Order: sequence, then structure tokens, then C-alpha cells
Amino acid sequence: MKDKNPTVLFQRIAFIGFGLIGSSLARVVRRQGLAGHIAVCARSRKTLDKARALRLADSVSLDAGEAASGADLVMICTPLSAYSEVAADIVPALETGCIVSDVGSVKVSVLRELGSVLPDGVHLVPGHPVAGTEHSGPEAGSAELFAGRWCILTPPQGTPPAVTERVAELWRRAAMNVEVMDPEHHDQVLAMTSHLPHLIAYSIVDTATDLEDYLKKEVVKFSAGGFRDFTRIAASDPVMWRDILLANKDAVLEVLSRFNEDLTVLQRAIRRGQGDKLEVAFTRTREIRRGVIDAKQD
Amino acid sequence: MKDKNPTVLFQRIAFIGFGLIGSSLARVVRRQGLAGHIAVCARSRKTLDKARALRLADSVSLDAGEAASGADLVMICTPLSAYSEVAADIVPALETGCIVSDVGSVKVSVLRELGSVLPDGVHLVPGHPVAGTEHSGPEAGSAELFAGRWCILTPPQGTPPAVTERVAELWRRAAMNVEVMDPEHHDQVLAMTSHLPHLIAYSIVDTATDLEDYLKKEVVKFSAGGFRDFTRIAASDPVMWRDILLANKDAVLEVLSRFNEDLTVLQRAIRRGQGDKLEVAFTRTREIRRGVIDAKQD
Repeated sequence: MKDKNPTVLFQRIAFIGFGLIGSSLARVVRRQGLAGHIAVCARSRKTLDKARALRLADSVSLDAGEAASGADLVMICTPLSAYSEVAADIVPALETGCIVSDVGSVKVSVLRELGSVLPDGVHLVPGHPVAGTEHSGPEAGSAELFAGRWCILTPPQGTPPAVTERVAELWRRAAMNVEVMDPEHHDQVLAMTSHLPHLIAYSIVDTATDLEDYLKKEVVKFSAGGFRDFTRIAASDPVMWRDILLANKDAVLEVLSRFNEDLTVLQRAIRRGQGDKLEVAFTRTREIRRGVIDAKQD
Repeated sequence: MKDKNPTVLFQRIAFIGFGLIGSSLARVVRRQGLAGHIAVCARSRKTLDKARALRLADSVSLDAGEAASGADLVMICTPLSAYSEVAADIVPALETGCIVSDVGSVKVSVLRELGSVLPDGVHLVPGHPVAGTEHSGPEAGSAELFAGRWCILTPPQGTPPAVTERVAELWRRAAMNVEVMDPEHHDQVLAMTSHLPHLIAYSIVDTATDLEDYLKKEVVKFSAGGFRDFTRIAASDPVMWRDILLANKDAVLEVLSRFNEDLTVLQRAIRRGQGDKLEVAFTRTREIRRGVIDAKQD
């Protein structure tokens, strides 16, 4: 019997959405035999065919309810804007004791959207594996994507610890460090570490896109001076990032205001030739870099 | 006789300043035997000792004039703010036919500063190898640093093509592609590809540095979401970047204004929940990324 197999954490995991993150987690699950059955739901037949070809799906469906039916873990891996539709599709199919989780980069909105519609006896454990690349789609996935990174879980009050622990264990098998956090706090921290950087990167590449053609060619040619790092970040999935910035609007606008103030101070120092102010600002930023290296997040 | 050796491009190259770029070029020169003699000048005895220990210097000196004496190529590799002092030191020592070049990231200011003070018969060929890392100092150097990147030369009008060609050949031996460009144009392009990205990266890390302590710790912990790429760029040498932003003030303020306008448009779209506008902006930035990859600058 499968449930006697100590490596099986869930009898049936349903992935709703199967892009970079979903397919990467499925690779981990498949490789270690963590699920008795992997059900994959995607919006397009093409993605389902890829999931089959990659041998990551035991069953595939265009219908989220069908995939979720009989699952003891439903992992939502779609852009945030699809969540309410996904919820409507899966709710009738969810069985008592099932855990619904996700991998979205914003957590307050997820709790708001899913928390109120899930039936009694179904547990919600929202999650955010803080890992990724600028590439999208199931072929871009990798079982090593999560190694050494953090996964943040934001279960609502009253969630039994054993339930949260089951989801935590899944991410630990993906070699992630797991932290449980308040969703508001998560959204504040990630606005700074992820959402603002992506917005800024998109914006600076956008500025270059608007340059006169003769300049634009050369911006690409000489991008090694720093710009190319921004183009990499700004190559991330546009729909996913549209959704993130809108779902975390308040926290993003707050850190963006701080950033604008700080940039204005530097701009003023450049205009006035105040080299000492620039040097002080550029020196103190090194402390954070050392922290990132010490925390092995580089 | 050394000048019969076809690999020797210069009889004596004097490096004035010996950090990441200078020492990397010296590694290329040493490895391929491109100079009969490598003279190194640095501000500190410690740097000179390192140059010796790395076997990159045939002679060392704290005096730029002494290093430049008898050189047929003087390569200035100091921060831009040291150029006028360097010029004053080397001018009495320069011999007729000598070429003075540099590796600074701004070129109009270099021509202004050096062009007027060099004696007749001494050639000025300013250069900018568009390559680097966030690390500083002679130990951080590498002979491979330049491979496949562009070096831009901005010789003043009237410079004999054969003179420019001698400097171009040196950089080609470092596996760089060489392009000759108008200095004003160089400064405009690099303001976009390098100076603005560094300013933005410093600014965003600066914003994080000012966060409340409990948030700052977590910003470091969860930096894998995008922020850590900015911390890397913002770990670059503070004095070097102070000098670049001041020396290229006009072009930097111009692209910064454009960036601010574009960011304000995105900010407004977020506040008003205009997802369509965000998606359009985030999609068109991918074109530039493809260009960077096609140009093999990634």
C-alpha cells in the first residue's frame, strides 16, 4: 500500500498551473517519489503535452476541478489573477482534509481570495518559495531551483500545526529552508526584496526601449557595463509581474516612495557636484552586500 | 633585441593605478609578452607589493613620473578624480612619441582634462574597456575579464590612425572587440548602459539600508527574489562610481530624468490598477533582452 511508503507525503498532488515553479516542484516530487499520483491541470493542451512528455504527470486535465478531485494537496501555481477562477473550479471537488496551497509571490491577497471560499474541513496553507529565474514555462523548470533558498508559509490563524508541517516537509524535500510568517509582513518584506527590484528593472529597460534607434542598438551592444543584469530581471514573465504589483499595490507603492526619495537625494548630489554625499551612500550599501553573501543567498 | 620580437607591442608600459582593470590588462600583457617592461605606479606601497607578488611588475614606484619615464605607453587606471594630479606628475617625464591612454568610464572629461596639458609629440588615445566585476583591487583581476567585450577608443581629431591602431591592437590581444567613437556619443550611451544602472542599484540598496532593523535582516535573508542582483552591482567601488557620476553629470541627469518619467507612469498604473498598461510595458522590454542575448553580451 502506498501510504505505508515512508517517502510518500501525499497520495495525490494536483498542480493547477504548470510553469517554472510548478514543474520544478513536480520534478522534486517525481524524483523522490513524494506523491502517489501527480495530477496536472493547465490552461493549454500544449502545456499538458509537455508535462506528459517530461514524465511529470500521471494524469492531465484542462479542468482544475477534475485535477483536484481526490487530491490531498492542491498546489496552485498560476498567476495571481487566475486564483478566483481556480477557486471556483476546485471548490466543488475538494475533499475533507485536503490542503490547498500555492506558490504566489503575494500572500495577503491570497488569503483574502481563497480564505473565504474554501469549504469547512479543507485547509489553506499559502506558500511562497523565494526562488526563480527569468525563464518561464515547464521546460525551464529544474529540481535544483529551490536548493538553499527560503520558502515562506503564511497559514491563517487556527491552522493545525500538523497541517502546516506537511506542506513545510514538502518544501524541505526540495532543499528549501521553511519559515512561517504573518502574510502582511511577508508582503512588506517581499515588496522590498523582489517587487520593487523587478519594477525598477522593467522601468529602466523600458527607458532604453524608448531611446532613439541609433542609441538603442548601442545600448544592447555595450550592455555589459551593468544594464544587461537589468535586462535579465526584466525578462521575467509579464503577466506574473503585472499580477504581483497589483496584488501587493500598497506595500509596493510604499517602498517605491522611499526609493524615489532616496534617488532624488542622489540626483541632487550629482547636480550639485557633492561627491562626499555620493561616496557615503555608495559605501554604506556594501554592508547589505556582505549580509547577502554571509547569508549564502548569492 | 626586444623590438624585433613580434609579440612585443610596447617597449615599456607604465600602469598608473593598479586595481581591477589595470592588473587584469597587466596579466594579459605579461602572459603574452606584449611589453618589454611593465612599470607599475600605485598610491600605496601595499598595492605595489601585490603587483610584485603577482609577478606583474618589472618595476614599481609611488611616483607616476618615474613609472612613466621612458614609457611608450602610459595607461592611466586610476579613478577619474586622480587624473589631473596624474597628468601633472607624468607630463615632465613623457617622451616624444609616447601614447597616453586610460580605462576611465567617462571620455569627454578625460579629453578636456588631459588633452590640453600633454606636450606636443605625445599622443592621447582615451579608451574604455566595457568590462568589470563588482570586485576591486589587483587580486580581483583576471586575464579573461575582457574576453568578448567591447573596448571603445575616443582619440581626439588629428590622432594618426597608426597610433590609435597600436592601442586597439593591445585590447584585441585581450580578446576585446574595439570600436572608435566620438567621446560625447560614448558618454551618452554609457550613461544609459552603465552609469544609470549603477546609480539605481546603489539607490535601491540605499533604500533597504534605511529600513527598520527587523525588516533589514529579512531583506538580506530573502534577497534571492531579485534584490541580491542589485546588491552585487552596488558593491562596486564607491570612489570610482562617485567620480563617474560627477564626470558624466549632464548625460546621467538626462537619462535619469527619462527614467523617472517612465517609472512615474508605471507607478500611476499600479495605483490605478491598470494591469493592461503594466503588461504592455513588461512585454516590450523583452525585445531588448533578446538583443542582448543575440549580441552575446550576456
